Amino acid sequence: MRPSRRQNDELRAVSLERGVSRHAEGSCLVRFGDTHVLCTASLEERVPGWLKGAGKGWVTAEYGMLPRATGERMRREAASGKQSGRTQEIQRLVGRSLRAVVDLKALGERQITVDCDVIQADGGTRTASITGAFVALSDCLSWMETRGMVVRDKVIRDHVAAISCGIHDGTPVLDLDYLEDSAAGTDANFVMTGRGGIVEIQGTAEGEPFSEAELAELMRLARHGIGQLVERQRTVLEGQPQVGSGR
Amino acid sequence: MRPSRRQNDELRAVSLERGVSRHAEGSCLVRFGDTHVLCTASLEERVPGWLKGAGKGWVTAEYGMLPRATGERMRREAASGKQSGRTQEIQRLVGRSLRAVVDLKALGERQITVDCDVIQADGGTRTASITGAFVALSDCLSWMETRGMVVRDKVIRDHVAAISCGIHDGTPVLDLDYLEDSAAGTDANFVMTGRGGIVEIQGTAEGEPFSEAELAELMRLARHGIGQLVERQRTVLEGQPQVGSGR
Amino acid sequence: MRPSRRQNDELRAVSLERGVSRHAEGSCLVRFGDTHVLCTASLEERVPGWLKGAGKGWVTAEYGMLPRATGERMRREAASGKQSGRTQEIQRLVGRSLRAVVDLKALGERQITVDCDVIQADGGTRTASITGAFVALSDCLSWMETRGMVVRDKVIRDHVAAISCGIHDGTPVLDLDYLEDSAAGTDANFVMTGRGGIVEIQGTAEGEPFSEAELAELMRLARHGIGQLVERQRTVLEGQPQVGSGR
Amino acid sequence: MRPSRRQNDELRAVSLERGVSRHAEGSCLVRFGDTHVLCTASLEERVPGWLKGAGKGWVTAEYGMLPRATGERMRREAASGKQSGRTQEIQRLVGRSLRAVVDLKALGERQITVDCDVIQADGGTRTASITGAFVALSDCLSWMETRGMVVRDKVIRDHVAAISCGIHDGTPVLDLDYLEDSAAGTDANFVMTGRGGIVEIQGTAEGEPFSEAELAELMRLARHGIGQLVERQRTVLEGQPQVGSGR
Amino acid sequence: MRPSRRQNDELRAVSLERGVSRHAEGSCLVRFGDTHVLCTASLEERVPGWLKGAGKGWVTAEYGMLPRATGERMRREAASGKQSGRTQEIQRLVGRSLRAVVDLKALGERQITVDCDVIQADGGTRTASITGAFVALSDCLSWMETRGMVVRDKVIRDHVAAISCGIHDGTPVLDLDYLEDSAAGTDANFVMTGRGGIVEIQGTAEGEPFSEAELAELMRLARHGIGQLVERQRTVLEGQPQVGSGR
Amino acid sequence: MRPSRRQNDELRAVSLERGVSRHAEGSCLVRFGDTHVLCTASLEERVPGWLKGAGKGWVTAEYGMLPRATGERMRREAASGKQSGRTQEIQRLVGRSLRAVVDLKALGERQITVDCDVIQADGGTRTASITGAFVALSDCLSWMETRGMVVRDKVIRDHVAAISCGIHDGTPVLDLDYLEDSAAGTDANFVMTGRGGIVEIQGTAEGEPFSEAELAELMRLARHGIGQLVERQRTVLEGQPQVGSGR
Repeated sequence: MRPSRRQNDELRAVSLERGVSRHAEGSCLVRFGDTHVLCTASLEERVPGWLKGAGKGWVTAEYGMLPRATGERMRREAASGKQSGRTQEIQRLVGRSLRAVVDLKALGERQITVDCDVIQADGGTRTASITGAFVALSDCLSWMETRGMVVRDKVIRDHVAAISCGIHDGTPVLDLDYLEDSAAGTDANFVMTGRGGIVEIQGTAEGEPFSEAELAELMRLARHGIGQLVERQRTVLEGQPQVGSGR
Repeated sequence: MRPSRRQNDELRAVSLERGVSRHAEGSCLVRFGDTHVLCTASLEERVPGWLKGAGKGWVTAEYGMLPRATGERMRREAASGKQSGRTQEIQRLVGRSLRAVVDLKALGERQITVDCDVIQADGGTRTASITGAFVALSDCLSWMETRGMVVRDKVIRDHVAAISCGIHDGTPVLDLDYLEDSAAGTDANFVMTGRGGIVEIQGTAEGEPFSEAELAELMRLARHGIGQLVERQRTVLEGQPQVGSGR
Repeated sequence: MRPSRRQNDELRAVSLERGVSRHAEGSCLVRFGDTHVLCTASLEERVPGWLKGAGKGWVTAEYGMLPRATGERMRREAASGKQSGRTQEIQRLVGRSLRAVVDLKALGERQITVDCDVIQADGGTRTASITGAFVALSDCLSWMETRGMVVRDKVIRDHVAAISCGIHDGTPVLDLDYLEDSAAGTDANFVMTGRGGIVEIQGTAEGEPFSEAELAELMRLARHGIGQLVERQRTVLEGQPQVGSGR
Repeated sequence: MRPSRRQNDELRAVSLERGVSRHAEGSCLVRFGDTHVLCTASLEERVPGWLKGAGKGWVTAEYGMLPRATGERMRREAASGKQSGRTQEIQRLVGRSLRAVVDLKALGERQITVDCDVIQADGGTRTASITGAFVALSDCLSWMETRGMVVRDKVIRDHVAAISCGIHDGTPVLDLDYLEDSAAGTDANFVMTGRGGIVEIQGTAEGEPFSEAELAELMRLARHGIGQLVERQRTVLEGQPQVGSGR
Repeated sequence: MRPSRRQNDELRAVSLERGVSRHAEGSCLVRFGDTHVLCTASLEERVPGWLKGAGKGWVTAEYGMLPRATGERMRREAASGKQSGRTQEIQRLVGRSLRAVVDLKALGERQITVDCDVIQADGGTRTASITGAFVALSDCLSWMETRGMVVRDKVIRDHVAAISCGIHDGTPVLDLDYLEDSAAGTDANFVMTGRGGIVEIQGTAEGEPFSEAELAELMRLARHGIGQLVERQRTVLEGQPQVGSGR
Repeated sequence: MRPSRRQNDELRAVSLERGVSRHAEGSCLVRFGDTHVLCTASLEERVPGWLKGAGKGWVTAEYGMLPRATGERMRREAASGKQSGRTQEIQRLVGRSLRAVVDLKALGERQITVDCDVIQADGGTRTASITGAFVALSDCLSWMETRGMVVRDKVIRDHVAAISCGIHDGTPVLDLDYLEDSAAGTDANFVMTGRGGIVEIQGTAEGEPFSEAELAELMRLARHGIGQLVERQRTVLEGQPQVGSGR
């Protein structure tokens, strides 16, 4: 049995709490077990310089961890003066994942920045970030729709969510926590849309290389988990938008 | 009447939630109205280089704001590559305030870093940080006491808490929120101990200079407010320590 | 008796030497005993971006220490690649203090930067900086008046000067030098106008907390000292402006 | 037909030139068509701090591009003062890929750094880097074997090489050049061992999400291409080591 | 006899290979023995801010070394976050040397940046850079001439090349390699035009000071060497321009 | 006649004021006309890492300009976060020049850092720095001699001083001020010892290249000027050392 005593295809307790920021146009506190990430979506009426006059907008993401989000305190990136390679990798991934389901033309010449800040970490912070960021982004677009700026469902073309899988002691398992991740021989992250298309796949052999058969099994698990996450997103996004005051 | 419709000597709703971090030896989520700061205390078995062999420890603080803690998104300090002057001022203040009530010899050759991260800002983040940091520090020392490293009450000699005051429309008022702070003619921060000693006072005339009489009135308000904050700290720290797993 | 053998309410030998820079529109070499600070005021026909079109100007300050201004050589901030928290705190304080007596609208859409560079340090560099910066600023405005750009006395509404006080061996004393500062239990800096209004007060307990009564006594000393400093400013500013060539 | 007029499963002209650096213990100039990367392996008799005393060594990689390696000159990273997120992502990938086939214990407490510098870019720089870095690493270990430090074939457990694939106009194709990459709907990079194990897979939907069937087809192409690259590595590594002078 | 067994006035084997970059408007791989520098000239239709509207263009240079260009691997400047003083000195020298033979008005409001990247180092990298940069610059201007932007020979007024000399064991020698440079008592770099004018001279006594007579002798050697280098430039620049694709 | 109305071979008014810093082991305020540089020599009982155990010491220099030392205020290097290429060039030159007359073995395993800070600039700051730095260094060694650490005259083997020359309107002139430097066609800096040996020569053609005959004439002027500067150093260094308190 895996360390977390969950079934091999069992997610951790997942919650998506909307409207947690008073200021941000959209926000979501996402929890995958003990991994808690605060996602806020901020609208700005400008686009990056290289996109000026292109008739479309931009969606980007930034990622950070509080210094003691982890078991051992890490140095604050603002104090060390630069973002680590890991931080940059993750924020680029979150941004790409969101843009995969956004129609940038329908957004208009504006930028939405989704900040994903890890309050507490226990593995899977990047997949939780993507899953929560989608909810924050959706509420930001609802905020805009209320003000007649966009039609939300023309900008957002599908859901997007993400999950990690790994091979623990020879067995593929879903949604690794930190302990499982440390022990896993292979670690793979999957980003998929609500309709089941693959947006991003990143698989890494930590020890021994893995086989195509193993990859297929990891993908099967991921599809199962992401299906549940998208269902959760749908449920939580029903009803009224829960938006902040905006700027 | 002041914008917040509170009495001139009335604090915002204050809460101090202990044990909010799974990992940190001590932690506290402090809320002064809509200002929310997560304080975590992290123990390290080392001291800064300049203190080596001095037979005593060190307590320090770091401060940060999530980019969208504020009404308008601010640039992430980790991305801009340096901490602002304001950030450095505040974290130096928090560290000094905590050390004012700590016996560094009784701590032994160890360092405790208290991270104060502003999740949501509505004025008074530095005073909330100090007030919450004390609680996190206290639980960190309880964690250490459980392991026979220190006697908590020998290390912590008194409570410490802080509040802001200001002159609004000619009238001194307690605990400014962001709107009140923006409109105030004078802004003062007070840090005091449980026994009423002054640890730090910082008063700034934003517009017209202020008089000694006004300063005395601000101090009277501050003493009133800090008395309540210390009482709240006492209440919340009763009973069992609520500590994290530590490293 | 205090280490410097001065009376408790006695300033160090103070001098304010105007026109010491060939280039700067206004300049002043201020000496508080062995603390020597070169203050230069530089005019620029532009304002910071956030002030554009606001119909007013800006006064700001920068602070630095030569590496061997101190007893032990300090690392050059330009070489270490960033300004310390202490440097930033001081330059923010100097800027705020000057702006407290300036009518930014009467200045027009221009910026004056006062650089305070510590040539030699022996305690009280921030208070000497403020006191000397005022003189440099005044001559810069005289330079501008000569060219018909402003009326100096409409821009400068009052004098501003600053002094430190502390509690040495239980006794409040005025204008601490480095040795006294190192030994003082409480350290407070006061910034006041020529008419006696308080612009800024910063009091810090280095060891034991201090009482309101002690604070009042420190303020009494400060008022006494600042009165003398303002008198000195008045005397030295009489007669012809002593200005540089400007750009 | 694809823009490069190659068959869908056809690699660009590949060459691996050993011994191109006079100094480096091992080196390889790898060419995938117009993409040229200089890989040098440098031995140091030390390990990173966190590995000290662990009884094993470390293999790491750094990546850079000459400013005019690309069609449009890019800003020099040394001048801008930091490495981009893309640079960090790639160098982390190259390092992980090499370590997947290295026995760090057999290496002993030493570090080998493989620098991959792109002299000219036309797509696929990361896959060329991994493929060439393996050759440089192998010759570095031969240099060490000659000096009795290691047995090369105990340190290197297998070959490792990498290739990109993508979906061009609906058709999966192998080894994208820059033009093809810009037009591709999906871009995937595969890193595999000589025995066919998967070390790393990174697939990204640039536009529409992709399906599992498409991923499987891309992997089939990749396996075909990597097989040829490993064969090329084997051929070129036959015969005498071609090493530099070392330090 | 000098360590390299060359005659005292004998250059190393010199080669200037044009058109080595597919992208750059002009490029040259210059070899002075084992010192190999890749020079690329990049055209941009903009000038630095301080030159806007001045009716003339700018030619500048950047310099870098691959980390293992040297006997011992050096830290990558992009990773350390800044360019060394040596790097900055050299790139400023290369830029000045090129501008000495360019008519910036005839260039028009454009900037050409010549990147000199040292692929392999064995002494004399700055003199090789200047000599090769001239060839890259010349082909960049030919590229522009083809497009009717300039008349090359109106922009380039003369050749420019450079060589080092030194005093080895009391004897002045030409074109020091790394070993000779390390042992030389005096090291001097000369930059001269095709007509024999001096553009730059930098002489440094590494050990004992040198005399005017020695300087004169070094200059005689330099003139001899630079004459040959200019001859080589003339030969290699005959015939068709060898240009890249440009942007 | 040259703009400064001096004779072609006439220095500006030169003064060397010793003992101007209370703290530094040795110090000198050097004035070449309106160029004023404060030089302080600081002793540290450590050597750079790469020199440990080599049985010798190190002498190095740092250079800086106060922001308004110049006609137009320059950005503070500490605020911009890096030292310019010009700053680094100059401080490397000053350090080399001092080391040319110092016996590093006789110094012992210690480091002396000479800080050269330009209080006011009017051309020739690097040559004034070298000339004043020698005096500060000499007094630092006298401070050490008094404490039995070294014999000053065994560490310092000769004087060193520096001067600039240039070609103004076709005529070689000595010791350029800022206006003359801006108009000069060629600018050359010479560093020489008391016995007339050349330590460093840097000549740059700002416009037209210069000839060997012109260089010889510039050197004749420089030799004349440096002879006077060394004489001045000798005079000022007679009598008692004028040292600071040291650390």
